[in-house]
Amino acid sequence: MEQQGKVHPITRDIEGTPQESMFDIKTQTLPPLESDDVIVKCLYISIDPSQISRMKHKSSSHTSAAATSKIMPGMLRENCGYGKDDIVYGLLNWAEYTIVKNGNTLRKLDPMEDFHYLTISEFLVNSISTPIRYSVGTSGLTAYGGFFKVCKPKKGEKVFVSAAAGSVGNLVGQYAKLFGCYVVGCAGTKQKVELLKEKLGFDDAFNYKEKTDLNLTLQSYFPNGIDIYFDNVGGEMLEAVVANMNPFGRVAACGAISQYTNSRKQATPNMIDIIYKRIRIQGFLSLDFYTNDFKDFMQMTIDYVRKGKLCVLEDVSHGIENIPAAFVGLFHGHNVGKKVVQIAQE
Amino acid sequence: MEQQGKVHPITRDIEGTPQESMFDIKTQTLPPLESDDVIVKCLYISIDPSQISRMKHKSSSHTSAAATSKIMPGMLRENCGYGKDDIVYGLLNWAEYTIVKNGNTLRKLDPMEDFHYLTISEFLVNSISTPIRYSVGTSGLTAYGGFFKVCKPKKGEKVFVSAAAGSVGNLVGQYAKLFGCYVVGCAGTKQKVELLKEKLGFDDAFNYKEKTDLNLTLQSYFPNGIDIYFDNVGGEMLEAVVANMNPFGRVAACGAISQYTNSRKQATPNMIDIIYKRIRIQGFLSLDFYTNDFKDFMQMTIDYVRKGKLCVLEDVSHGIENIPAAFVGLFHGHNVGKKVVQIAQE
Repeated sequence: MEQQGKVHPITRDIEGTPQESMFDIKTQTLPPLESDDVIVKCLYISIDPSQISRMKHKSSSHTSAAATSKIMPGMLRENCGYGKDDIVYGLLNWAEYTIVKNGNTLRKLDPMEDFHYLTISEFLVNSISTPIRYSVGTSGLTAYGGFFKVCKPKKGEKVFVSAAAGSVGNLVGQYAKLFGCYVVGCAGTKQKVELLKEKLGFDDAFNYKEKTDLNLTLQSYFPNGIDIYFDNVGGEMLEAVVANMNPFGRVAACGAISQYTNSRKQATPNMIDIIYKRIRIQGFLSLDFYTNDFKDFMQMTIDYVRKGKLCVLEDVSHGIENIPAAFVGLFHGHNVGKKVVQIAQE
Repeated sequence: MEQQGKVHPITRDIEGTPQESMFDIKTQTLPPLESDDVIVKCLYISIDPSQISRMKHKSSSHTSAAATSKIMPGMLRENCGYGKDDIVYGLLNWAEYTIVKNGNTLRKLDPMEDFHYLTISEFLVNSISTPIRYSVGTSGLTAYGGFFKVCKPKKGEKVFVSAAAGSVGNLVGQYAKLFGCYVVGCAGTKQKVELLKEKLGFDDAFNYKEKTDLNLTLQSYFPNGIDIYFDNVGGEMLEAVVANMNPFGRVAACGAISQYTNSRKQATPNMIDIIYKRIRIQGFLSLDFYTNDFKDFMQMTIDYVRKGKLCVLEDVSHGIENIPAAFVGLFHGHNVGKKVVQIAQE
């Protein structure tokens, strides 16, 4: 079978802030299939800032992303575990079609279990993409694991979330409010700040771009100190949080977007504060929670969505041509909630 | 009763690296005693770098330090809990005599329990000085709690200790070796490096002052990465450790001596490493372990000392006049092991 599809190879090394001109689009003929191959047609692609690390570190000629896809007839062996039109997700190329060597890296979605209350794109938003190491493609388990398992919150604690209108941050804030914490978020536009306060139920929110002194800003929003910080940005904000943290405060180190594109913007948190206030800074990846916590996470999340308590914040673009713009936009705060590109109709 | 004694008030604000000229010595007459007062004669004073924080932050006219002292007759009320010549420890002045308001802040040492295997100065080395908040006067519980409780080591893990010939570091390395870890320490002189390897049983050690590239140095001492870092120094060393740490590595943040006297020497650990390697950086103080772990700590430590497995490394000066030199020397690496000044004979 000869199959043609559009792909997005990277045309040059990614250094600094990514730009659309670094990506190109081509139409390629898929190579002949081998016996273990599975061919999938991409439906939705998850767009995440952490993909930039994969691009930088792997010098891959193809970008890859968490995606929900559909099994194509191709050369499906009997007993390979997949049937035509099965919906799967995994770490796939920025392409209309991907050939997957050995289908083990794909996870089949169960229409009854997984879609009972969620659409396919919501699944991508709230679930984990793939058990492959370092794929932090999706947001829900990151928010759930980082908040509940890393931070071990108590009711009434004071929680601060950066990039709070982003894919992970908005869910952290919502989980924290539903759990019984006091939650303040920061974001980069007036519209996002309004969204946090009015639609997502944050107790308060501010536009960090309007603030000249982050230390004083946090003092005014947290006169009694911060107990938990869900860090999506690193840099100066992390420094200011450490200065305003209460004894036994916890930092869930989830992202460092300020540093992804500019390594000089690294945080220098005051170690003396960390020592005397017994602060814990803990890095984590969503896949750490996949084995033990995935079920509880899905149950809680689906239950909240079904009851209308949790807002699923999707920001969907359409068409493979728009992947680079969607990706580049992440680094300029263009997305509101989880960025997804729909490549094809189901 | 009129009692005269020498005291060491601070003569000017401590900024930057402390110098002997910042301290003065005077002979004062002790004020009249009030009914709740207890007067103690100082025997040994614990000299610790963290005292500089107390000097800077409290603008106290008297320095204070963990000390072992002897109850003087003074005006001892009946049933006050103390008798003449009782040996106590607490947070006291750099002085021959201190009047303690309400003796609750003193802990009485039990000659049978506490001194069965340890001398009075060894007790100061291995024990905790006082339950008063922020008094991190002594070293043993810091080493024990930081290594066992914060780092949660597994046998065979690879441990790095900075300031490893210091009061806390030497004990961390010895505990880690006795527990079954691979231990490398760094220190600032050839003599200290030899001591670590030959007397204290470290697997390896190096002089950081001879190394121009800490990152490459750690790579060569830990070709398979670092699992646990007991951090006494902060700064560049912490950055290099984070770069060389294994997934799920732990940093016990105990001290930041590189930063005590120069706030520009703050560490900028790479947050992307912290996230992807799920590194935990945890600040702590010895007093956090006082309630639940003190007994186990003392039992293990006394047992090791008695069996000759644990070396108690004391560095003793004599006379109240020598306190400033002993203190200032800490910031130049003059001490080997725990610095103690003996003020009087028992």
